[in-house]
Parts: sequence; C-alpha cells; structure tokens
Amino acid sequence: MSGLLFPRLLVIGPGLIGGSLALAARQAGAVQRVTALSRSSQTIAQAQAVGAIDAGGQDVEALLAELQTGDLILLAMPTLSLPAWLERIRPALARGVLATDVASVKGTVVKAARDVLDEQLPNFVPGHPIAGSEKSGAGAALAGLFHRRRVILTPLPETDADAVSKVTALWQAAGAEVLHMPPDQHDEVLAATSHLPHLLAYALVDALVSRDNPEAVFRLAAGGFRDFTRIAASDPQMWHDIALSNREALLRQLADFGQHLEGLRQAIADGDGETLLAVFQRAQAARRHFAPLFEDPAASAGTEIS
Amino acid sequence: MSGLLFPRLLVIGPGLIGGSLALAARQAGAVQRVTALSRSSQTIAQAQAVGAIDAGGQDVEALLAELQTGDLILLAMPTLSLPAWLERIRPALARGVLATDVASVKGTVVKAARDVLDEQLPNFVPGHPIAGSEKSGAGAALAGLFHRRRVILTPLPETDADAVSKVTALWQAAGAEVLHMPPDQHDEVLAATSHLPHLLAYALVDALVSRDNPEAVFRLAAGGFRDFTRIAASDPQMWHDIALSNREALLRQLADFGQHLEGLRQAIADGDGETLLAVFQRAQAARRHFAPLFEDPAASAGTEIS
Repeated sequence: MSGLLFPRLLVIGPGLIGGSLALAARQAGAVQRVTALSRSSQTIAQAQAVGAIDAGGQDVEALLAELQTGDLILLAMPTLSLPAWLERIRPALARGVLATDVASVKGTVVKAARDVLDEQLPNFVPGHPIAGSEKSGAGAALAGLFHRRRVILTPLPETDADAVSKVTALWQAAGAEVLHMPPDQHDEVLAATSHLPHLLAYALVDALVSRDNPEAVFRLAAGGFRDFTRIAASDPQMWHDIALSNREALLRQLADFGQHLEGLRQAIADGDGETLLAVFQRAQAARRHFAPLFEDPAASAGTEIS
Repeated sequence: MSGLLFPRLLVIGPGLIGGSLALAARQAGAVQRVTALSRSSQTIAQAQAVGAIDAGGQDVEALLAELQTGDLILLAMPTLSLPAWLERIRPALARGVLATDVASVKGTVVKAARDVLDEQLPNFVPGHPIAGSEKSGAGAALAGLFHRRRVILTPLPETDADAVSKVTALWQAAGAEVLHMPPDQHDEVLAATSHLPHLLAYALVDALVSRDNPEAVFRLAAGGFRDFTRIAASDPQMWHDIALSNREALLRQLADFGQHLEGLRQAIADGDGETLLAVFQRAQAARRHFAPLFEDPAASAGTEIS
C-alpha cells in the first residue's frame, strides 16, 4: 500500500514522536493536511516551525469537527492521560474517523479502549513505535526517526482489519518495520528490553548522586558509563507513567533480573571466579550474537514474532 | 615536560591499551624504541603491523636485559596476572628501570608491589587509564585512544617523585588528563562508575538470554538497550579479574545500588507515583548536569581530585 492513506491527520500531543510521524507522513504523501492539538501554543509553534503540521491550537471540538470518515487521530500524549482522550474522541470515531496511539504500554490502553469505546472499538488501532530519544518535544522531530525502526501494533480481535492495514501502511511509509502481537506479549518483552533498563539506569544515577561528592564520581566516568546511563536523561513523567502502567510485567522482570544479579553478587562474595567467568562469557557471546538484530533492524526483517 | 622521556619502552602484554599508548608515545617522540613481550607471536605481529612496536617476542630475559636506567616497563596484562610480573621485573628495577601498569584495580596491585618489590618499590608508578573499548587486542590500537581521556596515577608515599613526573608526562604526551589519588579512593570510585555498571549489564543480558526465546526479546530492543548493554560485550577474563580484585568496594557499591533499586521496586509495587517521579527527576537532572564532565573531560580540566 502506498500513496495517500489519510486525507487528514490530527496529532493530539505533538511531541517528538507525533511530530516525527507527521513529518514523515507528509514527506511520503501519506497525508494531505496535518493538524495538532496542544494546550501549549509554543508546542504548536514548534511543530509548525519544523514543518510537521499545517495548523493547530487548543480548541478540541473545532479540531475534531474538521475530521471526516477515513481521517486519522494520532494519540501521542503520556500513557496515563490516554484513557481520558479515548472518551473525548469517541464521537469522531462514531463518524468513521480512525485512531491509533503510541503509548509504550499496551495492556492499560487496550483495557481503557474496551471500557470506553463500546461500538467504536474497531476503529482504534493500538500501537507503539520502538524508537525515541532522550530528547523530547516537537522541536526535536525528525522525518527519519522511524527509518528501519520497529513499530508494534497490538490489534484486538474486534479491531477493523482495514484500519490495521492503513495504520500499518502509515508506519511503513515512515520507513518502519511493522510487527503485530498481543498486548500482553508486547508489555512483557518491553518490560525486559526497555522498562527495566530505564529503571536500572535511573537507580544507578540516583545512587551516585546521593553520595557525598557526586561530582568527583561523575568526573571519573568513562564512555561505558556515559552509554549505560544515557537513558536516565529520559523524560521523567513519561517513565513514571510507563512504570505504573506496566507494573506487573516490570515487577516480574525486576525479580528475574534480581536473581541473576544476586547470583553474581554471591559469586563475588565467595571469590567464585568460575561462575563469574561463565556468566560474563555467556553474556558477552549473547550480546555479540544478537547485536546485529538491534544495531540494524533490517538484518532480521521478514521474521514475524506473533 | 615534553620531548624524549624514555629511550626504551617495553610493553608486557601489548593489547588495546599497551598498543595504543605505544603508538601515541612514538608519535609524540616520547620514546625512541618500543619492544613488546607476549606469548603469542600473532599479538607481536599485530602490534608491529599497526606500528606500535619495533620488535618483540616471548623471551623475557632477553627483552628485560636490553633495558637500562631510565627506560620504562609498561605492565599491561590482566589484573590478576600482574603480581607475578612484578616479581619478574624486579631485577630490572634494581638497575634503575622504571615501571608502571594499567590495571583497573589499584588496591591489589599496590599490595602486591609492597609485598614483592622491597627496595625497588619507589621505581613503580601504579596507574589506570580510564579509557577503553569493548574491542580488545593490539589490532584495535589507536594513537588517539587516550586523547582527552583521564588517567589516574596512585603513587605511594615511597614512590619516586621523578618517576611519577615522567609517567605523568608520558600519558600527557598521549593527550590524557592525568590525576593523582590514593589507591583506595580510586577503587571505590571506579567500583561505582565502571565495575558496577559492567556487572549490571552482564546480569541483564544474562537474564534475557536465559529466557525461552531470547531472539524474540533482543529483536525488539531499541537504541537505549543497545547503549545500555554495549559494555556486556567487554572481555570476560578482564572483568572476572576486576570483580575479584575489587571485591570489597564492588560489594559495597552493589549494596548501595540495591537499596536504591529496592526503593523504586517498592514504589512501583505500591503504585507510589510521587516517589517514582521524584527519583526519575533527580536522576535526569543529575545525568544532564554532569553529562559535560564525561562527554568532554576537558570541560572540567584543572580541578584535581586528590
């Protein structure tokens, strides 16, 4: 599928992700007109300045009223704010407008959609682009942000198949590889590969900064520390929402990680070099073996997960 | 100090670090002739091929016999092998040859030097360049590896002041910023900024690879995960040695980190968003505030730690 997909796209919450998708969709000719909704006139101005949107403002009803059958709403606000927005856009979905989201946790979004959308549930396609940056805001938007990145859609049995196809095609037009899987599988895997690492990075930086003289410590940090803690510069509100929304899976992954870390701690305490070497070798081999998968998503294109 | 510092430099264990320092020292004219000692003829050939050394081999006695007063031995082997080498080079130190090392843990090295070197203790300058790469081997050597990186020397009260000055000047000739501090302070700080993050990265990758379908997990990893786990591709033998050599400090840092992580786990379990947001905000602010220190060491040049 290519060419025009949605005559109008309304981005609610035009930050890094929403702004970047709007830019890419415009460049690909997948949308004709892009509007944005934000309480902040500065955000609207930024999104306009980078060329992501045609117009925007904070008048919810006016912006929704512009949309017609076959147009798309992109919900790009923090995870915990999303349920209230599903309620607000429901009348537009009843007119045949489609909607999708970009929240990092899908279980809570899907639950809210079931609670709120009633007969409009088929028009909502839950999604999550696995891309981002420790930067945020529409000013940082890039048309290439999703190029060769993965986007996961978690459609429900009720979701309209054409709606899934069109949202899939939109992300593909932005250069992404699109995968479909159940919401709970998405949340478990992302807890392991994304939510837990963020938690560890935040905890490490917080532990260091709680010391007497943090500057002396940070001054002696090298490239490994810089890379390891880069994600601790991510948006706190966003990660607050993710940690609370994906609580169960994150607690499971934390417990699993804790067991492995305790194994290493015990080996160090016991002077058990054999165990340390075995674990380090296994981890090194795995990190090197799997590196091509996340260094370059295209290396594994074609194998579906769900 | 500049110009010729050591007529001859003997690198024992010419890998990434030893090879890179030799390259930089030759380019700066700080040494005249560089030899290397390695059991592996391939390592010697690699070091010669990249231009790091003039000659080398595995004949310890012959290579040591070439050295005279004012020459330098660079001990660049894994941490746990170092004490045995101090014993072997002692006769050369007795002739006025100097020595320095690059081991990542200084407490065990200093203890071994006290045990082994007797009257030659003043000729040994313990050191540690805070630079490296997940790559290893002389073939990866780069003259610029230490450019704007920090090198910590941990001289003892007995260490000869001229020897410290000349080793300091050698690292400066390679472009490094040199700091002096006590060995136990070095080990505590490095446990926090380097040894603990490596342990966490190894534990995380090991936890993921122990799952049923690790490939499905790694496929959905994004840039944050890639950066976070890059150090898990580091040399297992080297990190085995470091974990065992810096046991006490590493266990302390692990316990401290464990408390902070447990605080976050409890907040997630309790749905305590206020605590999560406060910790994430503090960590984000610290990571951003201190980033210039490790993104660009020169930003803080001039402030000594010890």
